[in-house]
Amino acid sequence: MSLITVGTMAFDAIETPFGKVDKIIGGSATYVAWAASNFYQPIKQVSIVGGDFPSEEFDQLAARGVAFEGVEIVKEGKSFFWSGKYHLDMNNRDTLVTDLNVLEQFNPQMPESYQDCEYLMLGNLSPAIQQSVINQLRNRPKLIVMDTMNFWMDIALDDLKATLKMVDVLVVNDAEARQLSEEFSLVKAAKKIMAMGPKYLVVKKGEHGALLFHEDKIFSAPALPLEVVFDPTGAGDTFAGGFIGHIARTGDISFENMKTAIIVGSAMASFCVEKFGPERMKEISKEDIAMRMQAFAELANFETATV
Amino acid sequence: MSLITVGTMAFDAIETPFGKVDKIIGGSATYVAWAASNFYQPIKQVSIVGGDFPSEEFDQLAARGVAFEGVEIVKEGKSFFWSGKYHLDMNNRDTLVTDLNVLEQFNPQMPESYQDCEYLMLGNLSPAIQQSVINQLRNRPKLIVMDTMNFWMDIALDDLKATLKMVDVLVVNDAEARQLSEEFSLVKAAKKIMAMGPKYLVVKKGEHGALLFHEDKIFSAPALPLEVVFDPTGAGDTFAGGFIGHIARTGDISFENMKTAIIVGSAMASFCVEKFGPERMKEISKEDIAMRMQAFAELANFETATV
Repeated sequence: MSLITVGTMAFDAIETPFGKVDKIIGGSATYVAWAASNFYQPIKQVSIVGGDFPSEEFDQLAARGVAFEGVEIVKEGKSFFWSGKYHLDMNNRDTLVTDLNVLEQFNPQMPESYQDCEYLMLGNLSPAIQQSVINQLRNRPKLIVMDTMNFWMDIALDDLKATLKMVDVLVVNDAEARQLSEEFSLVKAAKKIMAMGPKYLVVKKGEHGALLFHEDKIFSAPALPLEVVFDPTGAGDTFAGGFIGHIARTGDISFENMKTAIIVGSAMASFCVEKFGPERMKEISKEDIAMRMQAFAELANFETATV
Repeated sequence: MSLITVGTMAFDAIETPFGKVDKIIGGSATYVAWAASNFYQPIKQVSIVGGDFPSEEFDQLAARGVAFEGVEIVKEGKSFFWSGKYHLDMNNRDTLVTDLNVLEQFNPQMPESYQDCEYLMLGNLSPAIQQSVINQLRNRPKLIVMDTMNFWMDIALDDLKATLKMVDVLVVNDAEARQLSEEFSLVKAAKKIMAMGPKYLVVKKGEHGALLFHEDKIFSAPALPLEVVFDPTGAGDTFAGGFIGHIARTGDISFENMKTAIIVGSAMASFCVEKFGPERMKEISKEDIAMRMQAFAELANFETATV
């Protein structure tokens, strides 16, 4: 059995109030793989890159149990490139450049070796591509988690709604949840979105943490308050990677275990923002993760009171 | 021993997306008393009102163990009046009218019967008045909690800083913490503010919950996600009332117990916003509060994971 992650592998240029980097590895599938491989292996990647994508990046991930048979390498092409700038309020960013490059011809084909997929993480891509991946799997995965963004709500809402019917968990940020549902209250938004298909909704709120909705239940996870958010790039994908990685490791898709998965995702995201790109994700050990999980427990858990 | 709450007793006119009310009881000391009296009695009020303040409001609070010897009644004067309008994003509001009326001559005198004060809640008032109250108490209370706002940072920063040296817990919202500390990161802001005097800092974040800081420790409390925030007026004061009420009831000023106190405050605030003004606070029972505390435990507590 395996965990499949579908998404971009890319180059990013990033500017934050704390520094600047002109070319660093990025992409949603990259971040998901770095985070999830702490908890579960094998991870099978579905992506597309140009001939410029460094082989040592594949090697580093391969050493973590990540497979690349589903990654198309377009030798004469260039990898997807994104450039963005963050301000002091890291919840907002300006996109400076989006060069799709090889991503324009992305039409993923599932290799036979990927048919053992038990957990499927659909990174933010066109809903038609996300749907095509699901349709190519002969056995329905135990859990399908889907990320998306406002862009697809603007230009491909019908495709997006069709894909939503096929997934178990949708992960979006608060602005996207409001846009998709046309509701300001996140509680009302969650009800509407769950009626569109996903049984679970995760709403990411950046420095304010995340909410998990399922039926009438809600779980609120804090973000770790940090002195410096050095670079938030990839934090959302890292969160998703930690989330599905924990679920895959435990094999438990109950709401109670998803609460813990949200905390695992939040812990991984709290590492991600400490350095540029995925740098910090390459350094951390299981001991670091265990300590961070403990920090989250101290941050959020409390004794209740009699009245 | 007693819990003293110093603040306004007033009339409010409120408009929200869900309705409008032209004249309703308000004021920080009113909300603190309604919330705290669920947990601790006697509560001794320090305030000033005009001859227009309804005697039945005093009677209702008196039935809850609230004393008024420290409330000056200016028969020929009018009570403080505030009018505000909320938009769909309830974190922001427009103040339409502020008629100080009798509040302009507020110069509180502590009655002898108030000298048994063990817990002191200083509502948002001029820092000079807050300081005068502390100085009139012959025995230093076990815990002094202080609320303030950006207005005093703008016009009375030196007084504010002097008062901060005399209190244990400061309660502000996130924008105020940033303004007072001149730091964007709330972690850095908390360090600077705690260096100004208070050993504990509570940062209220509206729909995003609240943070409690003490030394190197942080606690993050969620807000209860609600379908409708009917009227947020008084939610901050109600939060403070629940917070100090729980601490007074338990007599425990440890960080661990303050975590629970933050949740009690959050639970009380979640009731407050369900109706206009203090209406909902007058209805709720101990059973309602116990159920709400349980809802917060389910909302926030989680099992940690091994890696």
